[in-house]
Amino acid sequence: MQEGSSIHERRVERVDLDDSRQQVVDRLVVEAPLELRAQGAPLIVIMRTPGHDRELARGLLFAEGIIAADEPLAELAEPPDLPAHEQGNVLETGLPADVHAPARVLPAVAGCGVCGKRSLADLELRAPAVRSTLTVPARVVAGLPERLRSHQAVFEQTGGLHAAGLFDAEGALLCLREDVGRHNAVDKVVGWALGAGRVPLDEAILCVSGRLGFEIVQKAAVAGIPVLAAVSAPSTLAVDLAERFRITLCGFTRGGRFNLYSHGSRIT
Amino acid sequence: MQEGSSIHERRVERVDLDDSRQQVVDRLVVEAPLELRAQGAPLIVIMRTPGHDRELARGLLFAEGIIAADEPLAELAEPPDLPAHEQGNVLETGLPADVHAPARVLPAVAGCGVCGKRSLADLELRAPAVRSTLTVPARVVAGLPERLRSHQAVFEQTGGLHAAGLFDAEGALLCLREDVGRHNAVDKVVGWALGAGRVPLDEAILCVSGRLGFEIVQKAAVAGIPVLAAVSAPSTLAVDLAERFRITLCGFTRGGRFNLYSHGSRIT
Repeated sequence: MQEGSSIHERRVERVDLDDSRQQVVDRLVVEAPLELRAQGAPLIVIMRTPGHDRELARGLLFAEGIIAADEPLAELAEPPDLPAHEQGNVLETGLPADVHAPARVLPAVAGCGVCGKRSLADLELRAPAVRSTLTVPARVVAGLPERLRSHQAVFEQTGGLHAAGLFDAEGALLCLREDVGRHNAVDKVVGWALGAGRVPLDEAILCVSGRLGFEIVQKAAVAGIPVLAAVSAPSTLAVDLAERFRITLCGFTRGGRFNLYSHGSRIT
Repeated sequence: MQEGSSIHERRVERVDLDDSRQQVVDRLVVEAPLELRAQGAPLIVIMRTPGHDRELARGLLFAEGIIAADEPLAELAEPPDLPAHEQGNVLETGLPADVHAPARVLPAVAGCGVCGKRSLADLELRAPAVRSTLTVPARVVAGLPERLRSHQAVFEQTGGLHAAGLFDAEGALLCLREDVGRHNAVDKVVGWALGAGRVPLDEAILCVSGRLGFEIVQKAAVAGIPVLAAVSAPSTLAVDLAERFRITLCGFTRGGRFNLYSHGSRIT
């Protein structure tokens, strides 16, 4: 995480009920739009915390089925001559101007896996079920949230960030990313794995802070991740998708225990 | 909240580190897609927790600039002859098939105020600054999160929901809605206010659980809400927008105090 661009200090007033009001400096997490372009034409814009933008772009385009795991993205460069207020917030993907995702309406492509889709049919996920022989000891799963938290750089300072971490079967951290959007944090770690030639991630565990919805399971399925752990509650659709794509879903992972919602045989 | 459709019970395995695994019943929050149509054509699909779907549709179409505050939506009815798996998840808006939002690319219209937009220019908010003479005692603001929580029906059972509450200047609750998506919860309360003829909400306070990003301030600005309080951290862009649209933004509202990020003169 490039801390310089992911945290801004602001002068705020702290109000106490005893009626004291004092000026303090607060550290806020940065939220800013990132526009991806194809041959100069706008392709999609997402709100994100700056940092690891190329991984985010690559992970997102992969999750949306626009690029394959082994497809190099030649450019991912900032276009020249941007106006000042767009600098740092635009990437050219180098994709053809008529790029389209096989299963989706392109103008509706979006970061969270749901928003912007036009119809129920657009939500259908074209991915195979996850194939993996991975097994993970229960104590490893139970320890993931604490490891995630101990590696988070920005949350402690701002209270404003979601985290996603990739771990191996022994619980060693492979990659951690933070973002104001929880789906972005997942796109960033998958984008990292794509760059490292590690996709499908059939030996990895993905742990996310907070709650776990549909879009996280969708992204895990596309990346071939067999075990998913969340600190808080999953939704019904998250569980349904995990069941269908043969993903082991662990929720409420805290205090030395967790709930197993699907494919529990991978936990030993 | 229609509890019947917003909670599902599932049988899960609880794993404890002492190696005991037992079957327990867990209550999950329901996440399901809602498709809005215009004369039968798909307009947008959003992931939401079922319940108050018409308020959600109305609030969302208003936030996106597709309908005006005083514009009646004649229909918002479920189309006949839906296949079984779509029943309960589709609403016909009655809008013309060529409906378009003045400032946006229509296929990119989406629930969270960001996703699906194609370019930075699409994010520009065409709303006037909030006009309000409302003042609110600091003790009222400090007490909002507890009131919000005490009225939440589903969170206690599932741990999986965001809440948005509209309050008057004395802290009395006007309307509370819960949803798996925090932007949906806000759309639902604004949709309620539209139905009650209360928009612009220039005498109201909006309190949201959790963090506060760009999209919530955007929705508050469109609805004319002068005071916004969040239990957790705001982002930089949330503060920037609140500053620009003359919204009083309170964050980290907990433990009898809060931080004032913008337009603090409304807090007495």
